[in-house]
Amino acid sequence: MGGDMAKQTVRILGIDTSLRSTGVGIIEVRGAEMRALAYGRIQNKPKVPHSECLENIYKTISDLIEDHKPDCAAIEGAFFAKNPKTAMVLGQARGAAIAACAVQQLTISEHTPRKVKSAVVGTGTADKTQVAKMVMRLLNLKEQPQEDAADALAIAICHHHQLALPKEMQAKTI
Amino acid sequence: MGGDMAKQTVRILGIDTSLRSTGVGIIEVRGAEMRALAYGRIQNKPKVPHSECLENIYKTISDLIEDHKPDCAAIEGAFFAKNPKTAMVLGQARGAAIAACAVQQLTISEHTPRKVKSAVVGTGTADKTQVAKMVMRLLNLKEQPQEDAADALAIAICHHHQLALPKEMQAKTI
Repeated sequence: MGGDMAKQTVRILGIDTSLRSTGVGIIEVRGAEMRALAYGRIQNKPKVPHSECLENIYKTISDLIEDHKPDCAAIEGAFFAKNPKTAMVLGQARGAAIAACAVQQLTISEHTPRKVKSAVVGTGTADKTQVAKMVMRLLNLKEQPQEDAADALAIAICHHHQLALPKEMQAKTI
Repeated sequence: MGGDMAKQTVRILGIDTSLRSTGVGIIEVRGAEMRALAYGRIQNKPKVPHSECLENIYKTISDLIEDHKPDCAAIEGAFFAKNPKTAMVLGQARGAAIAACAVQQLTISEHTPRKVKSAVVGTGTADKTQVAKMVMRLLNLKEQPQEDAADALAIAICHHHQLALPKEMQAKTI
């Protein structure tokens, strides 16, 4: 790869969705340098109606995209809740998040929790604290990010790794 | 109720969500008069990626709200798919639809299929054709609307009925 290509900048939005606490994180990769542009949690208090939670998820992600202009998005996927009711609630949160990305023409890829852990820690069975610690180290952060935000950054890092793979080996966009 | 109150106009958006064919319908009620302002289906072809389907659902509902300025929205609810995977996909479609309403500050109520059928046909076990025929008659339409659109209009009619109930008997907003 030529020097110019190696210095190409890519911004990736990672999202770890749930109704009450969605983690979000944007990383910027330039050659071998990787840094976090923004990360945090979209929190919804327990008694807030679902529609308001979904509004909050949609708007916050829309604003993040407008502010930081990521090139693509990645979301935790292929994780299915055990019961249909839980799956429905998680699905609604995912629907709001995916719609926010799609309306702004971002492609969205899905990565399994196992793949994300492997990409960041080196083992698919790593726990949340190990993930957060590795994310802190890889992105040279001063503090360990909160779990959901760390997971979102880990998803973005995982997606970056896989952008280096040949197209046919990359995760399908959803 | 005074004459003025009886002539108050209410516009209700009904939504019957699914990923590939979401029914939408807006009714306007003025006193004893009820008419359909717009109805149809948001269709997504089988091979279109989920993210594009969700974008289409979100944008079409947003445009409908901007064009017709409904006062509130109602959605088919408390229906749970048998398996978590189906529930997740339906949940995502619902999430995009609910976010579109919530971003424009519409309150959203849920009505069970049984309640919708009861409100329109008089029995909770009515089939889809009976619902479509009654919707056509109640709204004085020239043609029988397609099933998903008819269901969406039925949800809006059901919601109108329940707006006449005392507040504590109304469905909770979601």
